[in-house]
Amino acid sequence: MISKVKNAMSTLVGGMMPHGHHHHHNHHSGGGQTCGPDSLPPRFPYGRPDFLDLTPELLQYSTEHASRPVLTLKRDSRLHWRTGYAEVINAGKSMLNEDQASCEKLFVKKPSGKHRNSTLQEDNGVSEGRRPEHQNRRIPLHFWGVFDGHAGSGAAIMASKLLHRLIRDRLGEICHLLENPNSAPPICLAKNGSPYQADTKKGASQEPEDPDAVSDSTVRFHMEKAVSLEGLVIGVIETAFSQMDDLIEKEKASYAISGGCCALAAIHMMGKLYVANAGDSRAIIIRNNEVIPMTNEFTPESERQRLQYLGFLRPELLGNEFTHIEFPRRIQHSELGKKMLYRDHTMTGWAYKTIVEDDLKFPLIYGEGKKARVMATIGVTRGLGDHDLKVYNSNIYIKPFLSCVPEVKVYNLDENKHGPDDVLVMGTDGLWDVTTDREVADAVTAYLSCCDPSDPMRYTLAAQDLLMRSRGVLKERGWRLPNERLGSGDDITVFVVPLAGLELET
Amino acid sequence: MISKVKNAMSTLVGGMMPHGHHHHHNHHSGGGQTCGPDSLPPRFPYGRPDFLDLTPELLQYSTEHASRPVLTLKRDSRLHWRTGYAEVINAGKSMLNEDQASCEKLFVKKPSGKHRNSTLQEDNGVSEGRRPEHQNRRIPLHFWGVFDGHAGSGAAIMASKLLHRLIRDRLGEICHLLENPNSAPPICLAKNGSPYQADTKKGASQEPEDPDAVSDSTVRFHMEKAVSLEGLVIGVIETAFSQMDDLIEKEKASYAISGGCCALAAIHMMGKLYVANAGDSRAIIIRNNEVIPMTNEFTPESERQRLQYLGFLRPELLGNEFTHIEFPRRIQHSELGKKMLYRDHTMTGWAYKTIVEDDLKFPLIYGEGKKARVMATIGVTRGLGDHDLKVYNSNIYIKPFLSCVPEVKVYNLDENKHGPDDVLVMGTDGLWDVTTDREVADAVTAYLSCCDPSDPMRYTLAAQDLLMRSRGVLKERGWRLPNERLGSGDDITVFVVPLAGLELET
Repeated sequence: MISKVKNAMSTLVGGMMPHGHHHHHNHHSGGGQTCGPDSLPPRFPYGRPDFLDLTPELLQYSTEHASRPVLTLKRDSRLHWRTGYAEVINAGKSMLNEDQASCEKLFVKKPSGKHRNSTLQEDNGVSEGRRPEHQNRRIPLHFWGVFDGHAGSGAAIMASKLLHRLIRDRLGEICHLLENPNSAPPICLAKNGSPYQADTKKGASQEPEDPDAVSDSTVRFHMEKAVSLEGLVIGVIETAFSQMDDLIEKEKASYAISGGCCALAAIHMMGKLYVANAGDSRAIIIRNNEVIPMTNEFTPESERQRLQYLGFLRPELLGNEFTHIEFPRRIQHSELGKKMLYRDHTMTGWAYKTIVEDDLKFPLIYGEGKKARVMATIGVTRGLGDHDLKVYNSNIYIKPFLSCVPEVKVYNLDENKHGPDDVLVMGTDGLWDVTTDREVADAVTAYLSCCDPSDPMRYTLAAQDLLMRSRGVLKERGWRLPNERLGSGDDITVFVVPLAGLELET
Repeated sequence: MISKVKNAMSTLVGGMMPHGHHHHHNHHSGGGQTCGPDSLPPRFPYGRPDFLDLTPELLQYSTEHASRPVLTLKRDSRLHWRTGYAEVINAGKSMLNEDQASCEKLFVKKPSGKHRNSTLQEDNGVSEGRRPEHQNRRIPLHFWGVFDGHAGSGAAIMASKLLHRLIRDRLGEICHLLENPNSAPPICLAKNGSPYQADTKKGASQEPEDPDAVSDSTVRFHMEKAVSLEGLVIGVIETAFSQMDDLIEKEKASYAISGGCCALAAIHMMGKLYVANAGDSRAIIIRNNEVIPMTNEFTPESERQRLQYLGFLRPELLGNEFTHIEFPRRIQHSELGKKMLYRDHTMTGWAYKTIVEDDLKFPLIYGEGKKARVMATIGVTRGLGDHDLKVYNSNIYIKPFLSCVPEVKVYNLDENKHGPDDVLVMGTDGLWDVTTDREVADAVTAYLSCCDPSDPMRYTLAAQDLLMRSRGVLKERGWRLPNERLGSGDDITVFVVPLAGLELET
C-alpha cells in the first residue's frame, strides 16, 4: 500500500519539477492538477514555498505520506521578523501537499506609467531613479499567507504567488493617501487621483434651509460619512481577494488551475496588523499567554443562513435537486404528510412543518462539524477558485454559494507592548482540528520560555513543536497523539510570527 | 401651539375610547390610525395597556405633549413578579403614544378540539374538566412585551394584544414534548403528534457499507442532528412572530391597522428566560450591577449587508430608483467619471470606484446613527406590520427589506442566584437613546439599594426613575437632562422585572 503511493509519487514528482513546467506533453500530469480535456499547462508548477529552498530530492521526500517528514525553515534562510515556519503533508488523502504558504516583504509605491500592471513583477527594491525622491516614497509591507487547497493544488499555488502582489499594487494606487496617515481619505478623487470637491454652492442655495446642514465650509454635504484610512486598507484587502479570484477564473482559459483554496493572510503596514480570512484556517494572537482570536471560520454551519437565503431568493441555483430548508436528517418518502423539525434562513431555532414532496430534495446544507457540506460537495464556504466545481454527476455549480471576500480584523501593533514570546500563530485547519486555541497558546508559551531568546530559530522550532502536537507519531493504529487520540491526517502549515519581530530584525 | 395640539387631542381621545369602537362613522379617526380610503374600523381601539387601568380622563391626560406626564402602575394593581412599569408620551412627534406594552401570565396546555384556534380567547385559567387530569397539565408562562410603533399605532396595539397568545398556542401544540424536559424532542411526528420513526432497515441493506454508519439501533440514520428543547422553544417564538406579522397583513383586509412596530418580548418558561428582539428596542440584565446585554439592535446600519445583498440579488425591488451600493455621501451629476469611495454587500471596508450613471441613484442605505434610513423611509429593519409602507411618492414597497423574525437570546434563570436588586430592564429606544447601559445599571442599582426591599412598588419606582432620566425636565430650551443635554423627545416605555420575581410572588 505504502509503496504503491510512493511509486505514484515518484512519477508525479518527476513531472512537477520546476525545470519541467514548459513541457506540455499529454502524459504530463500538471503537478497534481487535473488537466482539462484540452490539456492546458499549469499556471505555476507544483512546489513548496520558495523560502524552504528545497532541492528536487527534498521536494520528493516531502511527499512521503508514510513518514510525513516535517519541513521547516533552514537555519541559514531567514524570513523577515524571524518568522517561524513548519509544514507537513497529509496522511494520504491527496497525492501532494495542497497547503501553500507565502512570506514576503514588499514596498507600496505609486505606480509608474511603465509598471501600471506590475502584478507579475518581482519586487526588487531598486528605486526607479527617474522621478524626484519625494515621489518615490515607499511604504514597507509585510505579508504572511497560508492557503489550504482542495480538489487540486492549482488555486492555492497561484494565490500564494500572486495575492500579496495584488494587495501591494492596490495599495500603490492609494499610496498618496497613505502618506498622510493623519488626514481622512477624500471621499471623491479626480481622474488624476487628486481629491475632488464637487461644487455644492449652487445646489445649496436652491434648497430650503435645512436645520441639520453644517455651516462649516469643509463639510459641504448634509451628510458625509467619515471613512478612516484603516477602512480604506480593509477595502483594499477585500477587493484584492476578489481580484485574485477573478484572475484565477480568467487565467483558467489558458492554464490548468485546479481546485480552490481557503486563504488566510496577515498584512503588516504602518503599525497595524490586518488579518484577512476566507475559509477555515485560523489565526490567533498570543500575548502574555492570553489568546486573542483574529479569525472566524467560514463553514456550511457558520454561514448556513447566508447560503439558505441565497437558495431561497435564487432557487434556480439549487437545480431542482436541493432544498434550502434544513432538516435534522434526511427525509424518507414514507414520511410525506408527517411533521418534521426544520429551520429556514430566518431561524436559529427549530419548528415542525408538514412534509411535502419538495422537502424530499437533498438539503443545501447537510452534516455536522467537519462533515457539514454545501450541496453534499464542499466543507468550506469562503475561498478562492472552485469556479468549475459542480455537484457530482450534475450541472449544478457550487461557486455562487461561495464567497471570496475575507473577514478582516485589525490589531494595533503600535498600541501594545510585546515581549519576545508574544506571537501571531497562523495555521491551516489541520493544526486546529486536534489542538485548541488554549492548547496552542500554552504549548507556544511553554516552548518559547525554554528557548534562548536570541536564537533566530526559536519561532521555527515553536512552529515545528505545534505541528508535531497535531500530527502525532505513527503507531500501529495510525497517527496518534500522546493521549492516544487520533492525530490530524490533513496537510498542516504553521507560521509563528513574533509580534516584536520588527524590532528583533534591526 | 400647545392648546392646538391639545384640542386635536380632545377630539381624538373622544373617538378613541373603548366604548366608541363599534361606531364606524366616516369622521371617526380610528384612534390615530390612518383610515384607508374605505374607512375600515380599527382592529383594536387606541388605548394604553390594560394593566394601567386608566379612566377616560387619565387616558386623555396621558396624551399631553406639553407636560408629558409619566404613567406608572397604580399601588393597588400588581403585575406578576412585582414587575415595575413606567411610560411617557413623546414631545409632539406623533399625536398619540405609539409605544405599547403587555405583561401577561398564561398557561401552556394541549389544545382541545374546541379551542384549536384559541388565539383571541382569554386565558381564564379554568380547567376544562372534561378530560382526565393528566391530559390537562398546564405549564405556566410569563410574558413581557414592548412594542414601539411608527406611522400609526395600529400594529403595535394589535401585537400587544395578540403576540403572547400566539406564542402560548404554538407552545401548546408541542405541550406533550415540553412535559418531558429531559428527553430531546423527536425529529419527526406522526399526524397525531406522537413520535414517528421511519423504517430504515430496507434502505440500509441496499446501500453499500458505510464506515460512518452507526450500528446502535437507536440511531437509525447516518446523520441526525440533535435538537434541544430550548431550540424548539426558540423556533416557536421565531415562527410566532412571523405568524403575528401574517395576521396583521390578513386582517388589514377587514380592519384599519396602521403602521408597523418594533417588538421586544421576554418569555419565562420552565426556568429559562427567552428574550426575543425584532427592532431597536433593548433589554439588559443587571446582575450584581454587571450588565448582560440580551439584545442586538436591528437598524439600517447593523443590517446593511443583509439589505444590500437582497438589493443586489433582487434589483427589481429597488424600483430603478435606488442603488444597493453604499457611498459616503450623495453623488452629484458633475462627478460622473470621477472615483468615489463605496462598499457593496460583501465589504466592511471602503474602496474607490469610477462613478457611472447607475451610481447617481439614491442609496438603499443612507444616513448615520439615528438618521440612517432604508430607501430614505424607515430607520428600523425588523418588526411587525408595515405591509403597505412605500417610498414617498412611489410604488416601491419597503416590506421585502424588513424582517419580522426576532433574534432570541436565552438566559438560564435557574442556574443563577438572584438578589432582589437583580433585574431585567426592557425599554424602547426612547430610553436608550440618551442613557447608556452602564448608566441604566448604575441608576437602577443605586435606586433599588435605597428602597425598602419589601415595598411592592420598588420596581415601578425604579422604572419611573429611569424614565425621568431619559425624558428630563421641561426648560425654556425644551426637555433637558440634569447635564443640560437634550432629553429624549420620543415615546418611552420601561419594564423593570426582578429576576427573583418568581420567589417574591409567593
